[in-house]
Amino acid sequence: MERPIGVFDSGIGGLTVAREIMRRLPHEEIVYFGDTARVPYGTKSPDTVIKFSIENTLFLLRFKVKMIVIACNTSTSYSIELLKGNFKVPVLGVINPGAELATKVTLNRRVGVIGTAATITSGAYERQIRTIDPSVKVFSQACPLFVSLVEEGWLREKVTYEIAQRYLKPLRAKGIDTLILGCTHYPLLKEVIASVMGRSVTLVDSAHQVAAHAKEVLAWENLLAAGKRIPRHRFYVSDESKRSTEIARRFLGRPIRLVKAEHTYV
Amino acid sequence: MERPIGVFDSGIGGLTVAREIMRRLPHEEIVYFGDTARVPYGTKSPDTVIKFSIENTLFLLRFKVKMIVIACNTSTSYSIELLKGNFKVPVLGVINPGAELATKVTLNRRVGVIGTAATITSGAYERQIRTIDPSVKVFSQACPLFVSLVEEGWLREKVTYEIAQRYLKPLRAKGIDTLILGCTHYPLLKEVIASVMGRSVTLVDSAHQVAAHAKEVLAWENLLAAGKRIPRHRFYVSDESKRSTEIARRFLGRPIRLVKAEHTYV
Repeated sequence: MERPIGVFDSGIGGLTVAREIMRRLPHEEIVYFGDTARVPYGTKSPDTVIKFSIENTLFLLRFKVKMIVIACNTSTSYSIELLKGNFKVPVLGVINPGAELATKVTLNRRVGVIGTAATITSGAYERQIRTIDPSVKVFSQACPLFVSLVEEGWLREKVTYEIAQRYLKPLRAKGIDTLILGCTHYPLLKEVIASVMGRSVTLVDSAHQVAAHAKEVLAWENLLAAGKRIPRHRFYVSDESKRSTEIARRFLGRPIRLVKAEHTYV
Repeated sequence: MERPIGVFDSGIGGLTVAREIMRRLPHEEIVYFGDTARVPYGTKSPDTVIKFSIENTLFLLRFKVKMIVIACNTSTSYSIELLKGNFKVPVLGVINPGAELATKVTLNRRVGVIGTAATITSGAYERQIRTIDPSVKVFSQACPLFVSLVEEGWLREKVTYEIAQRYLKPLRAKGIDTLILGCTHYPLLKEVIASVMGRSVTLVDSAHQVAAHAKEVLAWENLLAAGKRIPRHRFYVSDESKRSTEIARRFLGRPIRLVKAEHTYV
């Protein structure tokens, strides 16, 4: 029996990552867990984010997953080193792929990062980029209201544009040519962000990169699915409501059935 | 030994209620619990809100509290009947006092209610007002972004005003003369809400009412603190960070030490 890939997120934003994995690895089965009962993580402390990330990992390990993908920037920022260090299963996060792509894309070596308060405070992107290429200058900005705007479905409203201007103006002033969307919700605001930043700035959404990275690691570890089966993905959440199903559909780009997970640690 | 009053909330917004209790009952000791690790409740399902509310109650009961005050509208909406029905300790919520005051204040019998998605969906205010006075018409509106705006500290910004206009316009059109602020975060947006609604609309903030109600119930049950001591309040949270301490100070109106609770159910 083929083992699935485990993907977790604080909520359902990580479905954008799951979608990319499904696209690039069409014969791999995914078990997704969204911690919708405790979402968001981006406003919470490192200790709490680490605790929740361990619990999510333990939940996925029950499905004998062959890989864990942390599809949440906040969770990756604080917990990836610990998860990698303690669990046998390969663990991938969203920070490294995004940081790598940004250093490849930038021409003027000036890169911006936007994310939740927790992700920005962690300094995880700066550290990662410095490791890859110390010549790149990184400028960061937390955008706490972006997640709420996406969940409200206000993707192209006037106020969304105004809020984006307020958050992004300082980054524009720094003359960056590349901006990492360091939160899985932000790609849904791409239009507004692009219009504020202007055409000369490339937006980096790590979802594609993560899927590519997952494929490489599975190939390297000889863990790719052998058959050509059509996989049956499973999507678990710690809190299930009509509203979350609607938002999930927006993220996955197709109808989805969310199953409330029993025996979580919530 | 005097027993304390237990107050819980999904986060720290409920400190506005604690503050009113401290003002009106200056010799009562308060044990506060804010479930900051799982905040917000307003976007979550009834089952999850009920589960969390029971856990918060159990946490407070360890301190031998003589009364439980649910300082959270969402939590009151879904769990007060169950908590009242199952626990011996008197349980007070924020819905009933707010509903009572609104029915007293309104002259044209047209009352508006704003709150989180969960509170509005629950219909708790409508039900309560209908019970008190079936002649009052109730008009409701969820304002999901208000909590995020308060937590971002954008209390008087232009975008805040625009978002308020968008949410409140339908209520203005209904010709209400009274508006219940059905979420403990909203009193911090009073200025903006008042300017959008106009002078003819009275804003009802249930915090005062809850404190008055708590005093009545304690007197009735013969549970008022006997002495004139200066109480030592305790403020517990399930997640503690610099950020939550700052927001807590804003709500309580004075410096505060938040203690991370051990042995919660989070």
